[in-house]
Amino acid sequence: MRILGIDPGLGVTGLGVIEADSDTVRHVFHGTVRSSGALPLAARLELIRAAVRDAAREWQADAAAVETAFVGQNARSALALGQARAAALLGAADAGVPVFEYAPAMVKRTVAGYGRGEKGQVARMVRLQLGMAREPRPADAADALAVALTHWAHWRMGAVLPPEGRSGR
Amino acid sequence: MRILGIDPGLGVTGLGVIEADSDTVRHVFHGTVRSSGALPLAARLELIRAAVRDAAREWQADAAAVETAFVGQNARSALALGQARAAALLGAADAGVPVFEYAPAMVKRTVAGYGRGEKGQVARMVRLQLGMAREPRPADAADALAVALTHWAHWRMGAVLPPEGRSGR
Repeated sequence: MRILGIDPGLGVTGLGVIEADSDTVRHVFHGTVRSSGALPLAARLELIRAAVRDAAREWQADAAAVETAFVGQNARSALALGQARAAALLGAADAGVPVFEYAPAMVKRTVAGYGRGEKGQVARMVRLQLGMAREPRPADAADALAVALTHWAHWRMGAVLPPEGRSGR
Repeated sequence: MRILGIDPGLGVTGLGVIEADSDTVRHVFHGTVRSSGALPLAARLELIRAAVRDAAREWQADAAAVETAFVGQNARSALALGQARAAALLGAADAGVPVFEYAPAMVKRTVAGYGRGEKGQVARMVRLQLGMAREPRPADAADALAVALTHWAHWRMGAVLPPEGRSGR
């Protein structure tokens, strides 16, 4: 099974692909797509959507995983994140890949063992779990691999539910 | 020229189409697309995208117009709005229709004459400007017609710029 992890952002979106069966997991790919603030919004969203769609097809992903949005205090950031997330979700839909969502605390707990991992710690633990020669960089790509690993962990435990009944609000 | 106005929302998206030349304008269509909170987020976004894309094609829109997001205090609402806006913008892109953005105050000023129009006032003024037998309902559809009229007003004045350099944040 191939899992595409996505860490959406209007400026930088992290992507990470792992290949796993019930016992083993390995690193396949990680990277980022960047969209300049000088572009029209529609073009930025199109870049994100196309990158996710193309990655899902290129790496023949069976599932995609993304963090649920952490809603902080800042409405402006939330608007930007919402737009980027929607583009990513629609890109996965274009490739026919189901998307599973995991709360940020769940991702950190799964990857780093508890819910308060620093960004750097996530990269270290992702490297260890995937047996990579180096820590994945940048942090957005490491986070994408982390959410992919989270989906794998849930799938192994038989805890993966169909992506239904989630309204996004 | 046909203009598709869009008032995006995760629960209800308003759509309105007008046909205009430099001197006259008429009402073509208005309606809403609703997506239930019981659906997965990706399915809701897909509904919005498909509705905008299909409306743009069906009514042979030459341009689409949407309000820039009003960022209030509520980050959760901003996240939901961002997701809906992105789906609408990508739907217009799928139909090959350029999207123009107008600030909410600009829309109200253009349609109602000043920037503090109530929702009901927008519907009344849209009805008058378009010579409709009744006020357009619901408010989401009236707002969609209002932003389409705003684009027309700018286009008439030669004030329409290419939709570039807007970053959405």
